[in-house]
Amino acid sequence: MAEGVLFDRLCLLGTGLIGSSIARVARARGDLARTVVAHAKTPATLDRVRELGIADVVEADPAAAVRGADCVVFCIPVGAYAEVGAQVAPHLAPGAIVTDVGSTKASVVRDLAPLMPAGVHLVPAHPMAGTEYSGPDAGFAELFQGRYCIVTPLPGSDPAAVEAVAELWRRCGSMIETLDPATHDKIVAIVSHLPHLLAFTICSTADDLAEETKEAVLKFAATGFRDFTRIAASDPTMWRDVFLNNREALLEMLARFTEDAQALGRAVRWGQAEYIEDRIRRGRKIRRGLIERKQA
Amino acid sequence: MAEGVLFDRLCLLGTGLIGSSIARVARARGDLARTVVAHAKTPATLDRVRELGIADVVEADPAAAVRGADCVVFCIPVGAYAEVGAQVAPHLAPGAIVTDVGSTKASVVRDLAPLMPAGVHLVPAHPMAGTEYSGPDAGFAELFQGRYCIVTPLPGSDPAAVEAVAELWRRCGSMIETLDPATHDKIVAIVSHLPHLLAFTICSTADDLAEETKEAVLKFAATGFRDFTRIAASDPTMWRDVFLNNREALLEMLARFTEDAQALGRAVRWGQAEYIEDRIRRGRKIRRGLIERKQA
Repeated sequence: MAEGVLFDRLCLLGTGLIGSSIARVARARGDLARTVVAHAKTPATLDRVRELGIADVVEADPAAAVRGADCVVFCIPVGAYAEVGAQVAPHLAPGAIVTDVGSTKASVVRDLAPLMPAGVHLVPAHPMAGTEYSGPDAGFAELFQGRYCIVTPLPGSDPAAVEAVAELWRRCGSMIETLDPATHDKIVAIVSHLPHLLAFTICSTADDLAEETKEAVLKFAATGFRDFTRIAASDPTMWRDVFLNNREALLEMLARFTEDAQALGRAVRWGQAEYIEDRIRRGRKIRRGLIERKQA
Repeated sequence: MAEGVLFDRLCLLGTGLIGSSIARVARARGDLARTVVAHAKTPATLDRVRELGIADVVEADPAAAVRGADCVVFCIPVGAYAEVGAQVAPHLAPGAIVTDVGSTKASVVRDLAPLMPAGVHLVPAHPMAGTEYSGPDAGFAELFQGRYCIVTPLPGSDPAAVEAVAELWRRCGSMIETLDPATHDKIVAIVSHLPHLLAFTICSTADDLAEETKEAVLKFAATGFRDFTRIAASDPTMWRDVFLNNREALLEMLARFTEDAQALGRAVRWGQAEYIEDRIRRGRKIRRGLIERKQA
């Protein structure tokens, strides 16, 4: 499937950072789809997508947006899948592929699979790419290049549909990995969701400090804290939905992390220098692993 | 004091990231000191400093290094101040200024003040700059530019000595702030030490995961986790000493943070969407504050 135009009509439900980046890839390459249909929830975003000229058709009604599309991509917060899925399901074209870009995958199967008409292929996916910016202006065509995209087919998924979704992401510049939804959710809980929860928390802990200290926090934000605030600047609705839709895996990782942080705190209290050094060195080991894999 | 050469003989005790950066500023500007003396603990570092040619005199013996210097800067891990301070104190020149670059300040006063001979001026300082790299090759002359340097004079410090230290850092490109040591330690606990503790911890939590998941952690390290590993790659000895020498403030901030993280975890468990969103929005507020202050 390496040649030719991949889809006839590609429908993007949602045109934030990820959706608008896919639209830009389609514009730049020309071989993702003959026609790109973009849907957005608010009139302001619809207007902006029209101004940016990144889609062939801009459509306010999700049901109208999916009509006749051979590929539909959910690019909205995962908490909205069930509602929008119910709106669009009766209007999906026979044989259409439905995929998504959400950061949780078991919840996507739970919310979308029961709604799919016979003959429609659900192939969830998760491009591991993003920035702390959101909205249609935040997207760019290079966002997915050199990043992994995890595809999580269901048992019995049509191999041709799975391959079409993989090819979509290869053309976006991504490397494809296949996992089951539960394994995906556990991995992203530690590599992405927990780090975001910690970053949001430290920022709100700082915000709770007395007015005098808070000002100083802002003034003297050192490298460490600056990185945390960058992560913490991400879209609130999206992250609220991610946390609520990966509850079990996230809470398990938070529990493990809390135990480890308390153990390190205890070592600081009791002056256990060797324990502290050992923990710090393990952080460096992980970092070296990333550098070797060119993900640093 | 804006004109002329600031010091006759500037002694840097330690030539890692910070010490070697000060040496490079001195080389680049020419008006920090007529002679720069660099001391390092290991023969390998001494050799490397000689090869780099960033100091006029390279001296293995700290007592010999400080002799005749009108300014001595401790650029070693804060846990080594007491020992090295005892070695050099009898050899300090009358009227010399002793300052430092450590990330904790109350411990510096505790460890160095009792050792200072009469007529020697102790003026602790903390340049809020750094990278995750260490050693003499990691330094660069621009490291301190546009960053704050917090000076923490003692009650009764000689104003001329305080001004000389401030001017040293102004010439390095820093903005000067003055705080008492205890306030300094509390602020850096939240903006720098706690973020590092969290980053070290999440990396060791990931390292503890089963072999299969650990590989996946490395493979799929998303943006969030990559930033944490960057922070976690910092020098183990330096950070061990920082944690042990800012124990009380760090443990207080860790306790506050842990309460807040548990509260957010509880909100995830019970599906309290509004609470979660509120906490995420507060992170963004802090971020905006940094951007307004051009520290983002």
